[in-house]
Amino acid sequence: MNIIDFRIRPPFKDFLGTAMYAGAARRDGITRAIGFEPSPAAERQSIELLINEMDTAGVARGVVVGRNSGSLGSVDNAVVKEFCETYPGRFVPVASIDPVDRKRAVAAIELATKSGFKAFNIEPGGASPPMHTDDRRIYPIYAHLEDCGLPLIIMTGGNAGPDLSYTAPERLDRVLADFPSLRIVSAHGNWPWAHQILHVAFRRPNLYLSPDYLMANMPGANDYLQAADSWLSDRFLYASAFPFAPVAAYADWFRGLPIKRENLERVMWRNAAHLLGLP
Amino acid sequence: MNIIDFRIRPPFKDFLGTAMYAGAARRDGITRAIGFEPSPAAERQSIELLINEMDTAGVARGVVVGRNSGSLGSVDNAVVKEFCETYPGRFVPVASIDPVDRKRAVAAIELATKSGFKAFNIEPGGASPPMHTDDRRIYPIYAHLEDCGLPLIIMTGGNAGPDLSYTAPERLDRVLADFPSLRIVSAHGNWPWAHQILHVAFRRPNLYLSPDYLMANMPGANDYLQAADSWLSDRFLYASAFPFAPVAAYADWFRGLPIKRENLERVMWRNAAHLLGLP
Amino acid sequence: MNIIDFRIRPPFKDFLGTAMYAGAARRDGITRAIGFEPSPAAERQSIELLINEMDTAGVARGVVVGRNSGSLGSVDNAVVKEFCETYPGRFVPVASIDPVDRKRAVAAIELATKSGFKAFNIEPGGASPPMHTDDRRIYPIYAHLEDCGLPLIIMTGGNAGPDLSYTAPERLDRVLADFPSLRIVSAHGNWPWAHQILHVAFRRPNLYLSPDYLMANMPGANDYLQAADSWLSDRFLYASAFPFAPVAAYADWFRGLPIKRENLERVMWRNAAHLLGLP
Repeated sequence: MNIIDFRIRPPFKDFLGTAMYAGAARRDGITRAIGFEPSPAAERQSIELLINEMDTAGVARGVVVGRNSGSLGSVDNAVVKEFCETYPGRFVPVASIDPVDRKRAVAAIELATKSGFKAFNIEPGGASPPMHTDDRRIYPIYAHLEDCGLPLIIMTGGNAGPDLSYTAPERLDRVLADFPSLRIVSAHGNWPWAHQILHVAFRRPNLYLSPDYLMANMPGANDYLQAADSWLSDRFLYASAFPFAPVAAYADWFRGLPIKRENLERVMWRNAAHLLGLP
Repeated sequence: MNIIDFRIRPPFKDFLGTAMYAGAARRDGITRAIGFEPSPAAERQSIELLINEMDTAGVARGVVVGRNSGSLGSVDNAVVKEFCETYPGRFVPVASIDPVDRKRAVAAIELATKSGFKAFNIEPGGASPPMHTDDRRIYPIYAHLEDCGLPLIIMTGGNAGPDLSYTAPERLDRVLADFPSLRIVSAHGNWPWAHQILHVAFRRPNLYLSPDYLMANMPGANDYLQAADSWLSDRFLYASAFPFAPVAAYADWFRGLPIKRENLERVMWRNAAHLLGLP
Repeated sequence: MNIIDFRIRPPFKDFLGTAMYAGAARRDGITRAIGFEPSPAAERQSIELLINEMDTAGVARGVVVGRNSGSLGSVDNAVVKEFCETYPGRFVPVASIDPVDRKRAVAAIELATKSGFKAFNIEPGGASPPMHTDDRRIYPIYAHLEDCGLPLIIMTGGNAGPDLSYTAPERLDRVLADFPSLRIVSAHGNWPWAHQILHVAFRRPNLYLSPDYLMANMPGANDYLQAADSWLSDRFLYASAFPFAPVAAYADWFRGLPIKRENLERVMWRNAAHLLGLP
């Protein structure tokens, strides 16, 4: 079975300046807290080892999600593109949009659309100053994204902002209702609000969940899993959030979870391929 | 063992115009998501089949909950009454009150009390415009209901309003504290806030929980179940929320849950009989 | 294995006037709801029986947490001190601070620090009028406590205030971020927000959780347990919250939970000893 890993950040150029590489000790602490050993690809910042891990684990493609964030660091979209083009057929580029200035955001969306990006990414809680997901100032940007027709990843789980209110699921619920044609992927699955975001997913067909590394050893994991293996099987996306979880060991662990074979294929491959327009 | 199903909406007159019958495809999707096949009584809109299902499953009585809601459709209280009187001894009528206008609400409460209704129902999040459970404009109505002495069903779980904030359990917590003699049934059990509403139930003796069809395959179900089988056994109410769950198959499934026999009897019969003043 | 019980309120002087002794029927109802029989030490208000229970269960020390609360009753810090000095080596005194008046609070903190108290306790939701954990008026007090270097217990779980908003975990998240050197113990573990507070603990190294008696038979208990036995093992504190749970039977029950031996020792002894500066 082929796999698409929906969140990979390679040790390449601008990525090395973001907190996930610059703060290696903190990152490795998170990796161990979820029960894994840090990936040598992360620790040695080796793209070759990363691709070896992907090959080992049957990860055919990685979705490369950069960042355009005041507080968490930034990766130029051109760098994401360059990386993906260096390894043809292995990576899918996502364009990150800073939501602070709507005119610049719209210009960036138009440029990215022309350049062949397959999806967008915003992180409102990481903006400067931080914004909530349902901040009205982002609404013109959501409107533009809805019109573009490409899916949008929002980091609205985990440490998505200065405090827990930045992951409050009623905020995303409103955005999903107000832009019903905009397909939104909740990166980190709005964790720790597993119960609540599953309700939102139950009522909003345009929500996709990707709790990524938080499926391991964290509260709510069984709730995510039960949904992934039943009514949410066509809107659940596997991801390692590398370098937080190791690409190969995490995929091996995930494959061992009690999920029906056909749902595992959806979660680890088909849903992502469909969302990104891949064959 | 006899059963009272605390939430049944028969395929009768005004009910057929509400979303649960008018939007059959969406409803059947929900039924399948919780792991059941749609009831023929729902699909064929057959009262005869509904009563057959009740007989098969040992459901002696159904509590008929209408609706007086701007956005979800409405059922005249007289229609609820007419239906219940057509099948003497099988159904218990609940009067639905629109909370938007307090004077009309109080008049409706007085009329319903005189007409033999056994309980009231309001759905603040479905009002036009939607109201939160602890909206001050509802407080005079709560006061009047508390004085009447009959129990009140509030739909404050699931899709109770335009967004997740309409089920926020701190709102119901306040109402329960402010009207300590008003016995309130949370229809849909304030789902998805299972952990939080169980805390509210733990501290507020005037709260009854009825998560109805959301007990099946949904996050929090085990938490509801554990409470129903221990400290909350005398304030938990079984319901199918027909037509969302099939009356017979759901009752069969529920009886198979790991609950002590004496608590099953409380949950499926005694608590409802006591609350409604039935023998 | 020795045990430190991080929350004990002995039947001594001022304690007898607080709700936990004055309202014995309600208290015993809670004890039974979590699956225990009331302690004879609680029912007969016997210090001798309490110490016998401690001896039986191997509870070497109890942390005596008073209360300075408008609505829940108060215990003079001098009474806490007197009690602890009567039984040398068995109890650790905690000074309770009323957060309503910052100047009096700061004076009380200074007095307590000089008198040998090992930790502080505030209960913002029990103040008159009630305050939320992140109320700005408490910030000067938090600042002073951070400078003192002693740990702070905040009752911010369970019935911590007039409604559920008083335990909202985003409030404590903010305080932890704003005072990163202040070690805060969440008494009652911010229950019922188990999922959410575990996220906060995951991101804030200055948070310690002590869900105390709410580990038994309550939603979220397994989530607390899983964290206590893995990534949170060095910041989880065992407590009975006596007189709500019986000291001996609760310790016996807790020791039987599926926790690795080394983590059980941390949770029941080492973490508390380290936090309080005990040998």
